[in-house]
Amino acid sequence: MLIGSRSAERAELIAAEYRGAGHSGRIAGGSNSDAAAAELVIVTVPYDGHADMLSSLATELTGKIVVDSVNPLGFDKHGPFPLRVAAGSAAQEAQQLLPESTVIAAFHHVSADLLDDPTVNHFADDVLVLGEDREAVAVVCELATAIPGARGVYAGRLRNAGQVEALTANLIAINRRYKTRAGIAITGMS
Amino acid sequence: MLIGSRSAERAELIAAEYRGAGHSGRIAGGSNSDAAAAELVIVTVPYDGHADMLSSLATELTGKIVVDSVNPLGFDKHGPFPLRVAAGSAAQEAQQLLPESTVIAAFHHVSADLLDDPTVNHFADDVLVLGEDREAVAVVCELATAIPGARGVYAGRLRNAGQVEALTANLIAINRRYKTRAGIAITGMS
Repeated sequence: MLIGSRSAERAELIAAEYRGAGHSGRIAGGSNSDAAAAELVIVTVPYDGHADMLSSLATELTGKIVVDSVNPLGFDKHGPFPLRVAAGSAAQEAQQLLPESTVIAAFHHVSADLLDDPTVNHFADDVLVLGEDREAVAVVCELATAIPGARGVYAGRLRNAGQVEALTANLIAINRRYKTRAGIAITGMS
Repeated sequence: MLIGSRSAERAELIAAEYRGAGHSGRIAGGSNSDAAAAELVIVTVPYDGHADMLSSLATELTGKIVVDSVNPLGFDKHGPFPLRVAAGSAAQEAQQLLPESTVIAAFHHVSADLLDDPTVNHFADDVLVLGEDREAVAVVCELATAIPGARGVYAGRLRNAGQVEALTANLIAINRRYKTRAGIAITGMS
């Protein structure tokens, strides 16, 4: 796995931290352009830099599966709220900017804190996976299901990604009220 | 409990059906105006008639808790998709139309089929409850928790209701792909 960043040095430092923490698998760091050379690329930047970064990588990302997990949220004194995105969602915006890539929306709700916590080795969360391309959806569902306890669940076309991204605001509200790290699971699928 | 309808006769017929099916509690039918006389009113109309009906009942609903469970969805050959609502969500629209009522958004995702099914007596679903008024939120959370197995969970202010309403489109997509009656549960809250 390659972690990309605007600064390759910074990415390598973070990769070294993960290696030091005993995470399994080979983890290296590099530039965003290095990371874009992979078969499957996960985009986890703040929404602010989303469009610029994707536009600058359009050539490298041609023919690739691009997993967009970006949540366009604003924050004010009342907490988080969804930003209006002209394209409908960050994922649809990504697909417009990357017409030669296959954009899949997924991994919006899994708490980074939980994923990072070495004492947590089981998740009860489902990962909602959205996209137009059935094969790419299957690949990303499989990737999600590789997280112990988690499950990848197809949850609709890209035009239904906006509310999945925005739902992160609700999970933050739940976290604040109940002092937890909330995620979501789909019932009725056992 | 009183079921309201534009046609009081139709509401009474449906109430009689529920009584015949052995549902516990007293269930009667009446006009929408009759139903609006209750302390707590649940609005479950299609989005089409939502604004007109609420406007016509604004006087009766003054000082009441109005639970809005309306999902503004459109449907085409690709399935369901969220409708853009000028107010941000059906719940915010309701609050604008009913400035003297306390609008709470809840019960968007619980499958009516499941609730109706007399062989189902346990739910694994959480009911997301949104609103500005902490006391009214608590009342509706309690109501949700009265459904065996279900739990009412505070999930943010009304400005975060739009994505909760729209998420019903994703649940419909899940239902179609996996041939199920999907709902949602919040993880990390045991």
